[in-house]
Parts: sequence; C-alpha cells; structure tokens
Amino acid sequence: MIIDCHGHYTTAPESHNLWRKAQVAAYEAHDSPPSYPAISDDEIAESIESNQLRILCERGADMTIFSPRASAMEHHVGDEAVSREWSRVCNNLIKRVVDLYPDAFIGVAQLPQSPGVGLDGSIEELERCVTELGFVGCNLNPDPSGGWWNGPPLTDRYWYPIYEKMIELDVPAMVHVSSSCNPNFHATGAHYINADTTAFMQLIQGDLFADFPNLRLIIPHGGGAVPYHWGRYRGLADMLDQPTLAEHVMRNVYFDTCVYHQPGIDLLFNVIDRKNILFGSEMLGAVRGVDPETGNHFDDTKRFVDAVGLTSDQLAEVYEGNARRVYPRLDAALKSRG
Amino acid sequence: MIIDCHGHYTTAPESHNLWRKAQVAAYEAHDSPPSYPAISDDEIAESIESNQLRILCERGADMTIFSPRASAMEHHVGDEAVSREWSRVCNNLIKRVVDLYPDAFIGVAQLPQSPGVGLDGSIEELERCVTELGFVGCNLNPDPSGGWWNGPPLTDRYWYPIYEKMIELDVPAMVHVSSSCNPNFHATGAHYINADTTAFMQLIQGDLFADFPNLRLIIPHGGGAVPYHWGRYRGLADMLDQPTLAEHVMRNVYFDTCVYHQPGIDLLFNVIDRKNILFGSEMLGAVRGVDPETGNHFDDTKRFVDAVGLTSDQLAEVYEGNARRVYPRLDAALKSRG
Repeated sequence: MIIDCHGHYTTAPESHNLWRKAQVAAYEAHDSPPSYPAISDDEIAESIESNQLRILCERGADMTIFSPRASAMEHHVGDEAVSREWSRVCNNLIKRVVDLYPDAFIGVAQLPQSPGVGLDGSIEELERCVTELGFVGCNLNPDPSGGWWNGPPLTDRYWYPIYEKMIELDVPAMVHVSSSCNPNFHATGAHYINADTTAFMQLIQGDLFADFPNLRLIIPHGGGAVPYHWGRYRGLADMLDQPTLAEHVMRNVYFDTCVYHQPGIDLLFNVIDRKNILFGSEMLGAVRGVDPETGNHFDDTKRFVDAVGLTSDQLAEVYEGNARRVYPRLDAALKSRG
Repeated sequence: MIIDCHGHYTTAPESHNLWRKAQVAAYEAHDSPPSYPAISDDEIAESIESNQLRILCERGADMTIFSPRASAMEHHVGDEAVSREWSRVCNNLIKRVVDLYPDAFIGVAQLPQSPGVGLDGSIEELERCVTELGFVGCNLNPDPSGGWWNGPPLTDRYWYPIYEKMIELDVPAMVHVSSSCNPNFHATGAHYINADTTAFMQLIQGDLFADFPNLRLIIPHGGGAVPYHWGRYRGLADMLDQPTLAEHVMRNVYFDTCVYHQPGIDLLFNVIDRKNILFGSEMLGAVRGVDPETGNHFDDTKRFVDAVGLTSDQLAEVYEGNARRVYPRLDAALKSRG
C-alpha cells in the first residue's frame, strides 16, 4: 500500500473559493459573511476525480492524507473568528471528500490559528475534526502572521496546549506555513522552505521533546534545507551542547519526500534514517509542471523514491509503515476496514 | 592555487570587540563613543597566525577572500552613523590583516547598511574600500533589520545605486545576512540559510540581471536550500513564466561550497554547473567542531571538494579560475604580483 502523507485540496470547487473572498470582503466591510454555498457531491467528485484521484491512480499510489489548501489557510487574514469559520468550512469540505472516497483519502485538519491570540479555537477545531470527522492529524502553522515571524518559536510554552491536545488525541502535526504577505518571501519558493528549516533549528535549540516525548511533527518539503546541510545541523547541535540529532530531534521529527528531482531525493535517503521519511508528493501543489529534462511531472515523487534503490521491505516502510506509525488513527482506520 | 572565497575575521582582537560594545553603549546613552583602541601588529598577527593562517596552511589552501565577521555586522544595531563608524573600523582592520599577509588574504568590505535608510553610506564605504584599501568585493545584507525582513527585496530599485557602484568598480557582492534579533531564527542555523534561499527566489521572480547584466552575486552556504530543491526552483521558474534558471539567474549568481558534509557537496556538484561554484569554507565560522563521524572539521570543505571526483582542470576552476573571474580585482592583483 502506498500512502501519500502530503496532499492539499488545491482544486476545491470555485464556489468554495468565492465564499472565502466574500467572507474576507465582509470582514473588511464590518459586515456579516454570506451563508456558505451549497456544493453538490457531483462538483466535489468532478474536482477530485479529474485531479487528485486520477493522478493518484496514474502514479500507482493508493491513498492521500488530505488537508485543506495550505496557501489558502491565510491565518494572517481577518481575525480569529474569520479563521475559525474558514477552517470549519474547509475541514468540512475535506470530510466530504473523505466520505465520497474513503479508500483514497483521509483527513487532516486546518487549524483556526490567528496572530497574537491563543490556541483555544485551534484545540477545539482539532478535537472536532478528530473525534467527529475522523481526521488523523493537523497542519500547524509556525508563523500565522504570514511571513512576519512575530510570534513565538515552536518551543515556546505558547504552543503547549495544542501539543497536549495532539498527545491526548494521538495525532501528529505537519509544520506547514500558509501564503506570505511579506514581499521578501515568495510563498512556495521561500516561505515554505524557510519555515521548514526554521522549525527544525528551533527544535535543535530547544528541548521540546523532553516535555512531549510522544509528540510527532512532520516537516514537509523534504525538511527544507536541513538534509542538504545535515553536517551543519549536526555541528550546530554539538556547538549548542545538545545531544546528537538522532537522540534529540529525530525521535519525534519526520521529513516527507516533497523534493522535486532525483538528486535531492537521493540525498534525503542518503543522510536521513529511513524511519524518519514519509512518502509525500504535495501533488497538484506548488510545482505542477512537467520537467523538460525528464518528461515527468516535477511532483511525481514516487518515481524518484522508486529509483533510490531500496528493497521492497524498505520501500514498504517509506510508503506505508512509517505513515501508519506516525498517524496511529490512520493505522486504526485501515485495520478496522480489514 | 586554492582560493577560499568565504572567510570572516571571527578572531579579531578583543579590544576591537570591546570597542564595539562601548560604541553601542554610547549610542544607547546618547553619548559619544570612545576613540578606537590602538591595536598592535603583534595582536593581529597572533590572532591570524594561530587561527585562519594556520588552518589555511594545514588544509593546503593558499588564500582567503576575507571580510569582517558577518554576525557582528549587526546592521540593525544603532543607527546609520553607528553602522558607518563600525564598518570603517572593521574594514580598516581587514586592511591591516591584508597588509601583514598580502599573499594569504585579500579584503572584502562590510557595508554600513542600516534599516530604513538609503545606501549612500554603503556606496561611499564601498568606494573607499575598493579604491583606497584595495578590496575586491563586498558583503551585501538582504535584511539589515536582523530577521524582521521589513525592507524591500533585492530586486527592488532601492538597491540599484549599490549595484551601479558595484558595476562601476567591477566588484561582486556576497549576499550575507548578519545576526538575528528575531527569536524565531537562529542566526547560523536558520537566518543565514533562509536568507540564501530567499535571495535566490527573489532573483527568480524578478528580472534584475536584465538591468544589470554584469552584476555578480555570490549566494553563500552552498546556495541555502536551493541545490537540494533544484527541481522545485526549475519548476517554479517555469510556472512564473521566467526563462530557465540557466538563462535567467545562473549567468550572474554563484554558490560557495560552505556545505559541511560530503553528501551535500556531492549534490551541489551534481546539480549546479561547475562554473557557478566557488570554493569556500567560512572556516572558523558557524560550525567549528570536529565531525565525530569523520574525525575531520565540519568546515574543512576542501576535503569534500577533493573527494567529489573532479579532474585537476575541473578542480582548478572551482579552486581558482571561477574566483578570478567573479572577482576581477583579485585576478588583477594576483597578475600584478606575477
């Protein structure tokens, strides 16, 4: 079985996107948003079958851990109430996809974070998504400001309540920023990758997993810059008098395979323990084109993973076993289906 | 000949560092700074001979392109006048090192940038360093705020006057941030690498080199995350309807080899054209320890480059030829010595 741990609903029906625009416009006009539109199963089916489901089948994968579009989370837009309502409708839409295609998709929650406010709303929405909608994880934005980075690092006690809830529910988080409103940072070309790198370094500096030994965090996009600079991070851990990365961070942190060329994937598997790597593609995401050098889609990461030269048992860890271990509720769901 | 393009004077005499503290304290107290201390040639010699020069010889390199300590530039501390004075004394100290060891060091300037002000002071100091002190390049900080990123991207016309002066003087800039005052960003573990990645993506988005076809920028630390995510950047250029990276950015951009493990260096040479790679170590910089996995220093990047498997002609490009091409004033200085 091949599980893609990193998929977003980037092709949601246009009426969903239009409602978001109306919601933001209403907020700016100090008005009430319109009611959320009726979206038919057919609309959802068409958006999924012609896109994510088609590609999943074409590429020979089985299932995607699916969450709302990351760039559209926009925690920096509006206020906490706007973020709560937007997160609810986005998560509900994911639930409808899962209900239509329960074998191919399982849900991960967008959290209604908002700059400068606490995480009560996020905790509440996470609980709703896991206990009522059957979701198996969440996306946690380390910079809800959208590129201004004026909140506390992930090791700060500000974040502890959401970690406690994650532990209680036994769900991991993917550390994933949203779009950037800082003109210095292109969203998918700088902000995403910087956030991955930043989060990892925060975890080296801190001692978060002493307080939360069962907390599991997935750092997407192949861990940002980290595997390429693995020597730097091993050396910095040493200079900061921290334990080795293997002992200190890599018991709780996982990287996905969203690295869009063979040499990058080869490096990832060369330097990072296989147990810390989850298959992911973020397909139909940041980079949707065909690589003229190979004739294949940049985000067809399964080709790269297949070409690393792993045994079938090793591939099974990366494609399935690690994901079932990191997302126990996914494992339970799959087992309950027999 | 082996030229290390990336060295900072991280071991400057303590009286230099103490003066900086006094300068900042005076600024904060609305007072005048004390006069800069007398530093003897012996003090400078000791700090260099026991550190950079010793290591340069031990590792078999010949020369370092040498600039003031990057983390101490601190453009975000004090105001423009503070930055001007600090830059002058730092650059003057580099000039003294170069005068003591002209065969082993050649200077690169710290610029007196300051958040929110123009670049007149930087232009003036660059001109002084190049025409009076014989420097061959400068370090350009893309985020003088020290981690808040509230200035314009490198493609903005704000920066054009310094680019014009660089072209006029025929010197390149290394794009190099300083320390971080944002608690989210560890300086050498996040801010440095993020800045490299960010700068490269800004250059993809913009069209800076259409306006400055002869501008040359070195992105340090192996190009940040860029080579590891080379597929992503090729794909993003395509999605943004920009020319290929080879045509658009890589005629003017160079990466150094400050990547502190063999797999990272191998990847760098695998995906980046050799003509765009300059040997660098940033030795006695961010990561000064010995790698327990190899018994060698993390920043002994010459070992990694030697092990890539290049021919002697190819090595000569990376160790010497590319640096002489990117820093024409270095080439001229070397030629004038015969």
